[in-house]
Amino acid sequence: MSTRSYAILGTGAIGGFYGAKLQQLGIDVHFLLHSDYQQVCRQGLSIESPTGSFTLFPVQAYDNSHKMPACDVVIVALKTTQNHLLPQILPPLVKEDGVVLILQNGLGIEPLVAEIVNAKRVIGGLCFICSNKVGKGHIRHLDYGMITMGEYNENYQPGGITTRIKQIAEDFNNAGIPVELSENLLLARWKKLVWNIPYNGLSVVLNAKTDELMNAPDSRILVEEIMREVVKGAQGYDCMIPEEFIQKMLNHTEKMTPYLTSMKLDYDSKRPLEIEAIIGNPWRMATEKGVDLPYIEMLYRQLKFLDYQNRLV
Amino acid sequence: MSTRSYAILGTGAIGGFYGAKLQQLGIDVHFLLHSDYQQVCRQGLSIESPTGSFTLFPVQAYDNSHKMPACDVVIVALKTTQNHLLPQILPPLVKEDGVVLILQNGLGIEPLVAEIVNAKRVIGGLCFICSNKVGKGHIRHLDYGMITMGEYNENYQPGGITTRIKQIAEDFNNAGIPVELSENLLLARWKKLVWNIPYNGLSVVLNAKTDELMNAPDSRILVEEIMREVVKGAQGYDCMIPEEFIQKMLNHTEKMTPYLTSMKLDYDSKRPLEIEAIIGNPWRMATEKGVDLPYIEMLYRQLKFLDYQNRLV
Repeated sequence: MSTRSYAILGTGAIGGFYGAKLQQLGIDVHFLLHSDYQQVCRQGLSIESPTGSFTLFPVQAYDNSHKMPACDVVIVALKTTQNHLLPQILPPLVKEDGVVLILQNGLGIEPLVAEIVNAKRVIGGLCFICSNKVGKGHIRHLDYGMITMGEYNENYQPGGITTRIKQIAEDFNNAGIPVELSENLLLARWKKLVWNIPYNGLSVVLNAKTDELMNAPDSRILVEEIMREVVKGAQGYDCMIPEEFIQKMLNHTEKMTPYLTSMKLDYDSKRPLEIEAIIGNPWRMATEKGVDLPYIEMLYRQLKFLDYQNRLV
Repeated sequence: MSTRSYAILGTGAIGGFYGAKLQQLGIDVHFLLHSDYQQVCRQGLSIESPTGSFTLFPVQAYDNSHKMPACDVVIVALKTTQNHLLPQILPPLVKEDGVVLILQNGLGIEPLVAEIVNAKRVIGGLCFICSNKVGKGHIRHLDYGMITMGEYNENYQPGGITTRIKQIAEDFNNAGIPVELSENLLLARWKKLVWNIPYNGLSVVLNAKTDELMNAPDSRILVEEIMREVVKGAQGYDCMIPEEFIQKMLNHTEKMTPYLTSMKLDYDSKRPLEIEAIIGNPWRMATEKGVDLPYIEMLYRQLKFLDYQNRLV
């Protein structure tokens, strides 16, 4: 049994699900909550899942990160739009030899966290999961769940597979979560963006589900053109994504159940959109390498406009 | 007094207003109507305008172009989405030495009409007017009204100022409509697109009025970038639009009363959008010259998607 302690920052669809699975295994898990705090203290944390539903009770729940103990693994599962809180939250929460595992979408978060806790203590993870928070302290896991994990090194230099990352992967594996270890976190992040940028972005701008984007000829062409731009951006960082990967993503999405992307769900609920992490940072990083991504730039500016208008009082 | 007869194809905001002004002057004008036919036969055609409101009665109204007499000047003022009707309507309607005057937005309409009636009988016109049809046979003219007119020659070769175009301009002038004659119709059309492409396109995609597009920093940048692409497209046809023109359009729009573009009005009423004339044709014409316009291409595909979804039953 693992003796590592975990802190979960952001007990939502991602953090709530993975944290609950770890605690179910008997691991010491501490959850930071905000609006669901009272509910979870009283009633626990409920997970609905095709792999087995359960309710955790009691839960080591906190409404303030300063009340939490320092942990071996601090999982960042906030929305990236909350990342401005990390400089205050993280330092006291990571043990001397502890690590921060970033389970967020997009690009360019690890360098920010490295500035706070040092690059040597940063691990990145990408979640391939369909999961939603459907009520206070109530998470509905629909499908998938795999995490791709990789060590972060300064400027995303490939990091190799370390012992500590294997140990963390083992905890997740024991909890029933498949983990794939990646020697090249940056490549893994760019690959995930091949899907995330076109579908998240266009679903908001065009008010559409994945199937609508795939069925109309012009939006389908646009999805593919945007995917090609992501691949070009990745090339600027020596991350080679083969053409087949684009075809695989298109085929996969065609077979999916019609799906509202997380950005579209945020938009419809008038929550702030993760535009910078998912679209702005990749676009700017490509630009820094002299790679022009006009479709992605346009998508970025359209989303910034829509997000702003969406949250005017 | 002019002895020229006029046919008006499309008695809406544009055709209705200009046709009524010509008839008010005593000119012989014949109006093709569709859904407003009965109303206009019974009650006439009403023009509300800051330059003087009036009702024409009786009106030489027709519900079928085949009942109309051949005229000296046939004004095409249909929505461009109706242009597939022109091969049937036009041939019998233009006198032997008559002309077709195209008062439509966008690019690439003159070559189509030239195929039907021969390039020698085609004149293009651009209307700078704020006018709406607000009810059956009821047109509200808000502001402006100038027409820029130019002879069409094959492949938009500059045409010079002919006697016949001066005569038509004189009819409009006498009716109180200022006319500017252009030796280069293609340049005039590209210049108008500098405004029409970004504002029409983005107003639909971003669900926004002109002032909202100008006030938010990202949409404003996008407007300007799209304007620059139009200028690049024009350059591919040796039509030189100076940088100052972009600044003039931006300043002008900033000072305008918040404005819903015609494409946005069409979208909100679930009418077909003039995507091909205003955006698709310019984009394809630039592409033919090897000029890449990615923002405009993306805007085109987004509009095609939205138009399609908008009119699904």
